[in-house]
Amino acid sequence: MRERLRAAAKSPLAVDPADRLGLGGKAATAPLSHAHVERLAVLQNHLWGERRRSVLLVLQGLDTAGKDGTIRHVFTGVNPQGCRVTSFKPPNDVEAAHDFLWRVHHVCPIAGEIGIFNRSHYEDVVTSAVLGLISDGERRKRLRILRDFEHLLVSQGTAIIKVFLHISKEQQRARLQARIDNPEKRWKFNPSDLDTRQHWDAYQQAYSKAIAATSTDEAPWYVVPADHKWARDYAVSGLVVEVLEEMKPTLPPDPPGVAGTTVR
Amino acid sequence: MRERLRAAAKSPLAVDPADRLGLGGKAATAPLSHAHVERLAVLQNHLWGERRRSVLLVLQGLDTAGKDGTIRHVFTGVNPQGCRVTSFKPPNDVEAAHDFLWRVHHVCPIAGEIGIFNRSHYEDVVTSAVLGLISDGERRKRLRILRDFEHLLVSQGTAIIKVFLHISKEQQRARLQARIDNPEKRWKFNPSDLDTRQHWDAYQQAYSKAIAATSTDEAPWYVVPADHKWARDYAVSGLVVEVLEEMKPTLPPDPPGVAGTTVR
Repeated sequence: MRERLRAAAKSPLAVDPADRLGLGGKAATAPLSHAHVERLAVLQNHLWGERRRSVLLVLQGLDTAGKDGTIRHVFTGVNPQGCRVTSFKPPNDVEAAHDFLWRVHHVCPIAGEIGIFNRSHYEDVVTSAVLGLISDGERRKRLRILRDFEHLLVSQGTAIIKVFLHISKEQQRARLQARIDNPEKRWKFNPSDLDTRQHWDAYQQAYSKAIAATSTDEAPWYVVPADHKWARDYAVSGLVVEVLEEMKPTLPPDPPGVAGTTVR
Repeated sequence: MRERLRAAAKSPLAVDPADRLGLGGKAATAPLSHAHVERLAVLQNHLWGERRRSVLLVLQGLDTAGKDGTIRHVFTGVNPQGCRVTSFKPPNDVEAAHDFLWRVHHVCPIAGEIGIFNRSHYEDVVTSAVLGLISDGERRKRLRILRDFEHLLVSQGTAIIKVFLHISKEQQRARLQARIDNPEKRWKFNPSDLDTRQHWDAYQQAYSKAIAATSTDEAPWYVVPADHKWARDYAVSGLVVEVLEEMKPTLPPDPPGVAGTTVR
């Protein structure tokens, strides 16, 4: 999964958002994704027991790309003790008064945890740039700072998985329209999403640049085709499982002198 | 469930830890607990969508009472976005340099969240007292402070559910012994648990006093018989579901002017 989805060094978003990843379709894929989630639960338990290393899953994508849905489908079924989701909104006054990584650093996963970022520090090089809040020079400065920051995390025991959920413009149109048309989902619709949609090309370009500049061997980006939710869930759960399998988290050794003790 | 398990004003721990709550046994109860968990997932989704109020579940109990197991059984299956577990360890230097509620306040659930405390501010009136870290006068001062603190939380929209997982001394012996004898679980065994076990009666007494002093109508304690794990999981999931049903979280109204919009 990692090789297949690893972001290309050039034009990383030149990937078909409707790619089915060679899978048979929704019904055929559900049991495969389910197997990923079950395996994930076991591996997470070992990671938590080991309490030495951590995983950070960064989820980015345009509105309706399925960040919330991915978290719900992939991580419901994982013990919430040892799994922590942080949703990043625009920074508040205190956060904005610090450097842009201050609030991010604060919520990075502790040893044993799987941390999930629903949006992340990448908003500070993509959205900030598209909205003209930072200059192009500042954007490039930040990209380097992001690489350095992620190097710190990786070198201290965090495996980083960065996922761009890649949808087509037409699929976004359909999903936004569905939110508006379904009274049960209408409350989720934010009229500002339509403004953001006007900047579709600028966002694609900004993401493309950010991904190309920060997809390193130690903290790679994956571009996940996300027009099909079932393919998306299979891919993201597969990525996390693969990384954890490679980490081989192991339960800690017995405390010395415990075997053979009788409790009274 | 709430009426049945509500802590008595006097001798709240005079409850049989092996009580089966009138349930048929493990096999008969599993589907009932499963139904609780499924309902909990729906209610949590509404609470998160509403983003106005929160729930705080405080889990206390002696070693092996099943705090971790309860979290795993009741909350695996709930979307981790909107559900946050905090495990309290002995305070670190910075935490200890603040008042004892400082670190607790910091991690209280935000609007929309279910916060789960694995141990809590009650360690500061129970363990601290048993270990002689605070005087009896200070202990009583703190009990009042806890009531005031919880009043603040409740008045600002947090429903508080305090659960004491009540096991028998013999059941604790068996569980500790099982940890020692099972090579897969031995790493979980902490030799200091045996020291704590020496203070069994002191802990029972300290909990009894703390529960009696802080079980208020707005932030009640429930004493959950926990010798049978299946009864415990049924009871805790049932308590949380009942509280959420009463809160009736509702999805927010449509943003004005959205219905009928066409996305282009």
